[in-house]
Amino acid sequence: MKEALFSIGEVAKLANISIKALRYYDQMGLFKPAYVDPETNYRYYHDSQLYHLDLIKSLRYIGTPLEEIKKAQELNRDELIAFLTEQENKVREQIEFLLDIEQTISIVKRRMMKQLEDDVNGEVYISNDEEMRIIRADAEGMTPLTLLNASYSKLIQYMELSLGFIHMSYGATFPFAAYGNVDEITYRHIFTPVLSDKQISTMTPDLEVITIPSGTYACISFIFSVEHYFDRLQKLFKYIDNHQFTVLSDIYEFFSPIHYSPRKQEEFLVEMKVRILEPSE
Amino acid sequence: MKEALFSIGEVAKLANISIKALRYYDQMGLFKPAYVDPETNYRYYHDSQLYHLDLIKSLRYIGTPLEEIKKAQELNRDELIAFLTEQENKVREQIEFLLDIEQTISIVKRRMMKQLEDDVNGEVYISNDEEMRIIRADAEGMTPLTLLNASYSKLIQYMELSLGFIHMSYGATFPFAAYGNVDEITYRHIFTPVLSDKQISTMTPDLEVITIPSGTYACISFIFSVEHYFDRLQKLFKYIDNHQFTVLSDIYEFFSPIHYSPRKQEEFLVEMKVRILEPSE
Repeated sequence: MKEALFSIGEVAKLANISIKALRYYDQMGLFKPAYVDPETNYRYYHDSQLYHLDLIKSLRYIGTPLEEIKKAQELNRDELIAFLTEQENKVREQIEFLLDIEQTISIVKRRMMKQLEDDVNGEVYISNDEEMRIIRADAEGMTPLTLLNASYSKLIQYMELSLGFIHMSYGATFPFAAYGNVDEITYRHIFTPVLSDKQISTMTPDLEVITIPSGTYACISFIFSVEHYFDRLQKLFKYIDNHQFTVLSDIYEFFSPIHYSPRKQEEFLVEMKVRILEPSE
Repeated sequence: MKEALFSIGEVAKLANISIKALRYYDQMGLFKPAYVDPETNYRYYHDSQLYHLDLIKSLRYIGTPLEEIKKAQELNRDELIAFLTEQENKVREQIEFLLDIEQTISIVKRRMMKQLEDDVNGEVYISNDEEMRIIRADAEGMTPLTLLNASYSKLIQYMELSLGFIHMSYGATFPFAAYGNVDEITYRHIFTPVLSDKQISTMTPDLEVITIPSGTYACISFIFSVEHYFDRLQKLFKYIDNHQFTVLSDIYEFFSPIHYSPRKQEEFLVEMKVRILEPSE
């Protein structure tokens, strides 16, 4: 029985592959025509070799590079099963990576939505907050007047290496105390929220992950301006004093950009919150 | 307070980004230096603009193209949340795609491992097989002598479009009947196994998905050769006859390449199986 012979155009149609790809597979030695007409240089393929495209197309579909496919062609069945197990593990890694991204996006969104709900008109409000993981470093004597974006460099790089997606807000803590003016405040820690439930394992000694506990917080949110900053803080203190709340934590301060347009004036949302115990009545 | 100014090298270090990337972000208008020295052309960045890199790096991490990031910079908070929801959906689609690939690889592996276990020395054996979904087409009068690889083109293309990963074996069915020689066999259907549990929805009228039921099968497996093909088939028939099995199905025939090396002689594993009812004793 004489074997069927197909032109490159016919194979392209039968196998739903471009002629260009078939030419490239030929060059690479991945799928070579059975016969090349010496006069016209036209490529012809045997029917019996078409099944070779199955492995090529299937591995291409799961993202295997062509050079790897070429190696896979030389494997026996046992080795091919081992090769597929490797591919399976790679796919599993990608899935885990994407599940993590999905979760992070969802946490970022939830945080942004909560901020939108909050009252930003500079009045004190009481909020029952969920717990929040943060990664923090010693503030090394920095104050509201000296703190730099650049001060967060180490925290951000650490977050980036371990989680990829980085914080969208800059945090700092300082003790709850009777300040006469802004110059008297010195930060205790700087921090950024951890946007993942993932375990953070390899920690350098100057960084630590802690959890801000869930509970009742007295809060104030406002658009940052140098004039209002201390004024708003005093309002929070006065409110706590008036209501005879017992204070259970430092002040947590969050700076979050309101937008990321480099073409507009920078605007930051400031949130200050402190954990309280409401007097039992 | 005079604002801190950083050179491009300092920003690169602080933000863990290459100088090349920073130059490119400048060109694209994604992150421009606050000041360029007119004499040296050196770029300088304000500390207060560093936070812009947070959005850029985070979106880059989740795979957002730079042009899209540039658009995202101009969004307000509501719009940014909507944008993140879009990214979340894209990530979910990728996860679904990969979960499907993972499942397919696992099914292919399981099938290959089962084939390795089977006795391929050309003796009949009884196997309790799981059910198997196949996609089939009318064989249009083709026989073991005329069947081509190319005959499967439509089936393969359909599988490829709906599932991506394609079959690794070529199937055909023919009636269980008293054949005198190979010329008398005419295939009823040609088919390929479906390597996924995914629902196959848009079906053309000449293709159908059916399930080969689980049950007891009389089987014979051997390395294909023209001389042995009919001989092995007869052996299967004789065995069934000798054991007085009641036959419940057509003969299912599978051709699977033993290897995919274009540098070696082609070798195919043939499996024939027919569903039987063992006589109750």
